[in-house]
Amino acid sequence: MLENKDESRSPLSDIGEFKLINHLTKQVKLHHKSTIKGVGDDCAVISYKEKQTLVTTDLLIEGVHFDLSYMPLKHLGYKAVMVNLSDVYAMNGIAKQITVSIAVSNRFPVEALEELYAGIHLACKMYQVDLVGGDTTSSTKGMLISVTAIGDVEQKDVVYRNGAKPNDLLVVTGDLGAAYLGFQILEREKQVFEVNPNAQPELENYTYLVERQLKPEARKDVVKILKELEVKPTSMIDISDGLSSEILHLCQQSKVGCQLYENKIPLDQQVISTCEELNLDSTTIALNGGEDYELLFTINQEDYDKIKGNPNFTVIGFITPEKEGAHLITRANQKIEIIAQGWNAMEK
Amino acid sequence: MLENKDESRSPLSDIGEFKLINHLTKQVKLHHKSTIKGVGDDCAVISYKEKQTLVTTDLLIEGVHFDLSYMPLKHLGYKAVMVNLSDVYAMNGIAKQITVSIAVSNRFPVEALEELYAGIHLACKMYQVDLVGGDTTSSTKGMLISVTAIGDVEQKDVVYRNGAKPNDLLVVTGDLGAAYLGFQILEREKQVFEVNPNAQPELENYTYLVERQLKPEARKDVVKILKELEVKPTSMIDISDGLSSEILHLCQQSKVGCQLYENKIPLDQQVISTCEELNLDSTTIALNGGEDYELLFTINQEDYDKIKGNPNFTVIGFITPEKEGAHLITRANQKIEIIAQGWNAMEK
Repeated sequence: MLENKDESRSPLSDIGEFKLINHLTKQVKLHHKSTIKGVGDDCAVISYKEKQTLVTTDLLIEGVHFDLSYMPLKHLGYKAVMVNLSDVYAMNGIAKQITVSIAVSNRFPVEALEELYAGIHLACKMYQVDLVGGDTTSSTKGMLISVTAIGDVEQKDVVYRNGAKPNDLLVVTGDLGAAYLGFQILEREKQVFEVNPNAQPELENYTYLVERQLKPEARKDVVKILKELEVKPTSMIDISDGLSSEILHLCQQSKVGCQLYENKIPLDQQVISTCEELNLDSTTIALNGGEDYELLFTINQEDYDKIKGNPNFTVIGFITPEKEGAHLITRANQKIEIIAQGWNAMEK
Repeated sequence: MLENKDESRSPLSDIGEFKLINHLTKQVKLHHKSTIKGVGDDCAVISYKEKQTLVTTDLLIEGVHFDLSYMPLKHLGYKAVMVNLSDVYAMNGIAKQITVSIAVSNRFPVEALEELYAGIHLACKMYQVDLVGGDTTSSTKGMLISVTAIGDVEQKDVVYRNGAKPNDLLVVTGDLGAAYLGFQILEREKQVFEVNPNAQPELENYTYLVERQLKPEARKDVVKILKELEVKPTSMIDISDGLSSEILHLCQQSKVGCQLYENKIPLDQQVISTCEELNLDSTTIALNGGEDYELLFTINQEDYDKIKGNPNFTVIGFITPEKEGAHLITRANQKIEIIAQGWNAMEK
């Protein structure tokens, strides 16, 4: 599908860089008054007045972060935007603009880039974000995407990683482990397909897992819900690199420790059943799998009543003084030190 | 030098991503009050108050944009920053922050990244820019660098590409063609070296050309000089992709034509002598060579006295109504239509 063996496809060399960028961005509709000038000059121009600007950037590389044999290009474009928006929401901000730089080798026809941009444009529409610039170039091998997201936040609302205090509650959004298992399932189906190209993928029992891997959603809603509930977290962090490593970042930056309860970690039913099937420990997956674009935050205990019972949030532990360290309390009531494993250690 | 055959070098796998970023950015000193929070959280936080924010991004890829066989890593880091700052200055703004994302394959030791960052840090120091974030990841092949620059400008001072009016003067900064010739000379020396590894490079007659290729400087000074002279250009554009293609962008966006005088195009003496030696047409090189990080701008004729005789600026032509098209007036007084060739057409 992706390689340019079909002569009806348009080779990239038929179209210059300037025309290609025009072609891929002509449908951009701007959502924000703050976007004074988008694509088409040396820089985008943005006007934030009294708010603070947030900037974050991520790089996704074929063969390292994604595998085009099961990642449709439209989904890849969508996901590349989510990865960055998630970091803006983790500061309690609203993402307003993105720039997208792409390098592709000649094996990709123009239509492949159109698919990729379809996902980027969809993400921009769904999350009300303006695409304001970027760079498109050739690569000697494969595809890579570099996205920078820009957002804003009132100075009084910005939430850093370093504000957690002892006795604060540790709260996580959504559920954990599904995106990693989705990856495992897709890898398994890929191997089946390589042995038998006529095999149909069997994904019906794993729909949630595969969706979490291929079409993650950043938690824009969490920023809105927290505002409505009048809860300002004392600290917050995106946990797409894995809960255990990110809890440790938060504790280190806040100079605190924590106790995390294994039996409180939110798991979807498909995560539990698939872990049983694959003989994997669901807690290990939830702690270290990564790629769940969820947020971890801490709140003052006084705010507990405001979030209690909200289906978006699960209290998974509490903050302790630094000298007590960071620990997981297991179902068997054992106390185990939390060690960063994160994304790399899972050998993805 | 670059590949990790020396066992005294530190392999990248010995150091995690988080530690690596910490290691490479620990020496960052922030220059701007507007940089509220730099490296170390989900986003950088920037506060611009009443100014407008400028954002630009560029991607540099090994084997496409640079060749490590003659581009020292420190120079590469410096140049990657310049490429982006130049776009901010082309809006008449001041660059304040950058993010840097880097992907490298395992063939690079930690020391190679330190060299690269030494160039990035030097550029930040020389140009008073704060490194506020980024991403470091592995690649399956080679090295790539994605830089995003963020700057600011008073609303009344911002200069777009679309403001040129008929009878405005067309002005270029510095001189043109040297960076492209520097590339040709380095390529020639590389080929000599491949035939005879004991050959010493002969670069003494080409020092300016090689410096323009390996250590370009963005024209921050031009923004300052224009302010001091009380000249606000009617339009401005970075011409690192080549004078001819960028003149056409400016004309298209401003809906004007232009007349450019061949005998006015500023050339360094080394450009003239090297073109003679290599039997190249210096005008073609100046028009299409690219990689000169100079600015092209237009001014109202009333401002001519303010820039007259300033060694930084050369008036190379004037703006005409759109229907008259974009032309070069040759030394022989012939009128030739300007056609975009730019960087790619030179087969770099």
